Amino acid sequence: MGPDLSPLKAIVGEGAYVEDPALLDRYLIEWRGLYHGRSPLVLKPASTAEVSAIMACCTAQGIAVVPQGGNSGLVGGAIPWSSDSQLQVVLSAERLNRIREIDAANGTMTAEAGCILAGLQQAAAEAGLLFPLSLAAEGSCQLGGNISTNAGGINVLRYGNTRDLILGLEVVLPDGRVLPMLRGLRKDNTGYDLKQLFIGAEGTLGFITAASCRLYPQPTSLATAFVAVDSVDAAVALYSAARRDLGGELQACELLGELALDFALAYQPALRHPLPAAGSWFVLLEAASSRLGADMDEELGRFLSQAMEQGLLADAVLATSGAQRSQFWELRHCISAAQKQAGASIKHDISLPLSKLAEFVAKVSDWLVSQVPGCRPVTFGHLGDGNLHFNVSQPADADPEDFLGRWEFLSRYVHGQAVGLGGSFSAEHGIGTLKAAELAHWRDPVELALMQAIKRTVDPAGIMNPGKLFSAPVLK
Amino acid sequence: MGPDLSPLKAIVGEGAYVEDPALLDRYLIEWRGLYHGRSPLVLKPASTAEVSAIMACCTAQGIAVVPQGGNSGLVGGAIPWSSDSQLQVVLSAERLNRIREIDAANGTMTAEAGCILAGLQQAAAEAGLLFPLSLAAEGSCQLGGNISTNAGGINVLRYGNTRDLILGLEVVLPDGRVLPMLRGLRKDNTGYDLKQLFIGAEGTLGFITAASCRLYPQPTSLATAFVAVDSVDAAVALYSAARRDLGGELQACELLGELALDFALAYQPALRHPLPAAGSWFVLLEAASSRLGADMDEELGRFLSQAMEQGLLADAVLATSGAQRSQFWELRHCISAAQKQAGASIKHDISLPLSKLAEFVAKVSDWLVSQVPGCRPVTFGHLGDGNLHFNVSQPADADPEDFLGRWEFLSRYVHGQAVGLGGSFSAEHGIGTLKAAELAHWRDPVELALMQAIKRTVDPAGIMNPGKLFSAPVLK
Repeated sequence: MGPDLSPLKAIVGEGAYVEDPALLDRYLIEWRGLYHGRSPLVLKPASTAEVSAIMACCTAQGIAVVPQGGNSGLVGGAIPWSSDSQLQVVLSAERLNRIREIDAANGTMTAEAGCILAGLQQAAAEAGLLFPLSLAAEGSCQLGGNISTNAGGINVLRYGNTRDLILGLEVVLPDGRVLPMLRGLRKDNTGYDLKQLFIGAEGTLGFITAASCRLYPQPTSLATAFVAVDSVDAAVALYSAARRDLGGELQACELLGELALDFALAYQPALRHPLPAAGSWFVLLEAASSRLGADMDEELGRFLSQAMEQGLLADAVLATSGAQRSQFWELRHCISAAQKQAGASIKHDISLPLSKLAEFVAKVSDWLVSQVPGCRPVTFGHLGDGNLHFNVSQPADADPEDFLGRWEFLSRYVHGQAVGLGGSFSAEHGIGTLKAAELAHWRDPVELALMQAIKRTVDPAGIMNPGKLFSAPVLK
Repeated sequence: MGPDLSPLKAIVGEGAYVEDPALLDRYLIEWRGLYHGRSPLVLKPASTAEVSAIMACCTAQGIAVVPQGGNSGLVGGAIPWSSDSQLQVVLSAERLNRIREIDAANGTMTAEAGCILAGLQQAAAEAGLLFPLSLAAEGSCQLGGNISTNAGGINVLRYGNTRDLILGLEVVLPDGRVLPMLRGLRKDNTGYDLKQLFIGAEGTLGFITAASCRLYPQPTSLATAFVAVDSVDAAVALYSAARRDLGGELQACELLGELALDFALAYQPALRHPLPAAGSWFVLLEAASSRLGADMDEELGRFLSQAMEQGLLADAVLATSGAQRSQFWELRHCISAAQKQAGASIKHDISLPLSKLAEFVAKVSDWLVSQVPGCRPVTFGHLGDGNLHFNVSQPADADPEDFLGRWEFLSRYVHGQAVGLGGSFSAEHGIGTLKAAELAHWRDPVELALMQAIKRTVDPAGIMNPGKLFSAPVLK
């Protein structure tokens, strides 16, 4: 006799579970179609108590639980594992979608895991405050997924990763016990900071039901510039100066290599090259402030003039309208899509100490071209965070499948160079199933052993999101 | 036969251990004299390898290890536990005192655990950068202790607690294995963020040997003001406005109740009351910036004028010299010492959501006076962090010992009110031995059970700093 799913369905009640195969696809097929999972049942609990009952029931029966938010991840973390060794049910957070409280005086918002990020941004704005987490999937991704993946995005430079925006969590443990840690405090030194364990754990330790989030003042003045420089080192030096001279108000510093910009311009012919005559590397700078009387156009303009005089940049243009600002950002945001037009690409999400960025880009680009003549390393990313999406497009005339067949070999080298320079092989996208083998390869054995020991301690029955982070079940 | 200490002495070598009882006192008696520990041996390793060998040897023999930094803590966490159930050796970080690297382009500093905080501040400044951790003990406290206690201090509002300043750690586990996590990255989503476990763990999980720390631009303009308001609620509203109108450049917002200020003025007769005619609550505001052309006196002055017009404050004075700024800060810093002159006091280190501060102060002050007529609750602390040092001075004519005899009863109520309003009974000082009973009482049983499970997982032999955090050994 297999596990009995009927008590699970009874917990959430009619209309709050899915078992019709035609309707399951939405939960079992990753949005890009790269991962297909199998599961007979998706559960959509509407309360922490329901999640608790589900988890206890799954532990009792040895049924695996795959937490799922907006299904917008990039590493397959929210899709059931392809192994058939364990029956898996999907636990969707979509009905855990209440904002429980906004405390403007405390600068906090307590929200449930299934809240859509864009909705949280809007709710904060309506209270006159800012929830600064912002990323491409914000119209569909959910808070619980953001926390479980420690999402980054475009405001990390100023406000930090998701980890830095979370003051408290409510988490259901695999056995159904609830950790009531929804404190909204800036200081609380009372034992181990348990919430940190669950942030970025990709659903392998428990199910996050709600969080207490930090809110910030809404900026009232914003300025954006597009800057040309002659090298990656020059871009890093410009960032250092901007970080100092714009104070804490620099909020984005994005890098685009010449090829990335060319791809973007070819993909979006309506967009113009902001600085066609200068430089081979480009930096998008944005500063914002809520200061009384702040005029960020004036301040960013003054910074750029001085940087020009000091030889820190080749040329620069300040956005003079919201439309122009959007165009600058569109050039940055469309690079991934643009790269698709140029054929297959091998993607990376690496981070490095800023002092090593230039060395990495030069060395690794040369090596890639020596291995695959004609391949096109497209360098772009969050410069201020040291985070590059270093995606390599196929040679123009190559067979896409042939090129993708070298993914593992080429990526192993790219990751090795990043790790060797003190960097990371997964800066913001996480591990999921995509990089589980990389984690096993690159992470130090003592670190891996401790991660596995923690997994066994918190999830002794091994029901939480099997096959994620660790490619094999973590047995005692 | 008891444990054999000779291999431990051999690991560090002649001159790097202390066993002479007369010389041991410095390591066994807490700086205020409140805690006296017993230990036959203090070890002073000079390298991670030596720490590793010591830990392995202690695990093999079941000898307990008490990590010690600058011995400036306030909860007895660095002094051997008073129990005789286990032989304890002190592991002092004082010879692990090298700054391994300052990477200005990356904005990071890698330093060993025994580095004195003030030395790190200075080294960063010499590289043109700021290490923002700053607290009263900075001339003697050490980085490893700061990290193990997740130290707060006066710059938390802007730069966060120690946890927020740490990008990477090197940690020796109880069995001698080394976790090499000294990455200096802003983004790294590769499995559980293990370093978070050791930050704030008070030496109960491992021995931190080195850390990679965030550096920031050095502010070039600074302004400080002393402001009078009529209530705690008005102080909170002023903080909200300052946070918005001064942008991210507000770096301190300290609260002083009238009695706290009176005590300070009585203790330091050379200091003048900055605003003798106005208000009953006082706020010290400080803003600083590295922005090009920033004139913080002008900006803070403009903010105060507008706040005055809007009725957000009763009166305010801007420091017009470094000497005046120092006097404002001295009023804030001398409160603890000043309170000593007024007899015994029962100390608290609580935090609250800012929206609950006024309610807490009013209710709890009334209750205390109803219980102990004539007692004097002295309210002061880091308003912007919601962190009050709510220390209750004895009635002027009471017997100090009688008053202190009520510590447990009164504190239990104070802590209960804080916890009941969503606050914490230990905001920045930690647990140590002083608050181990409070932790067991106030922390949710599921949280406590998970903390203990983690303790058993990481330190299965139970050798790390016994009696701290948990008042009894955590057995399997």
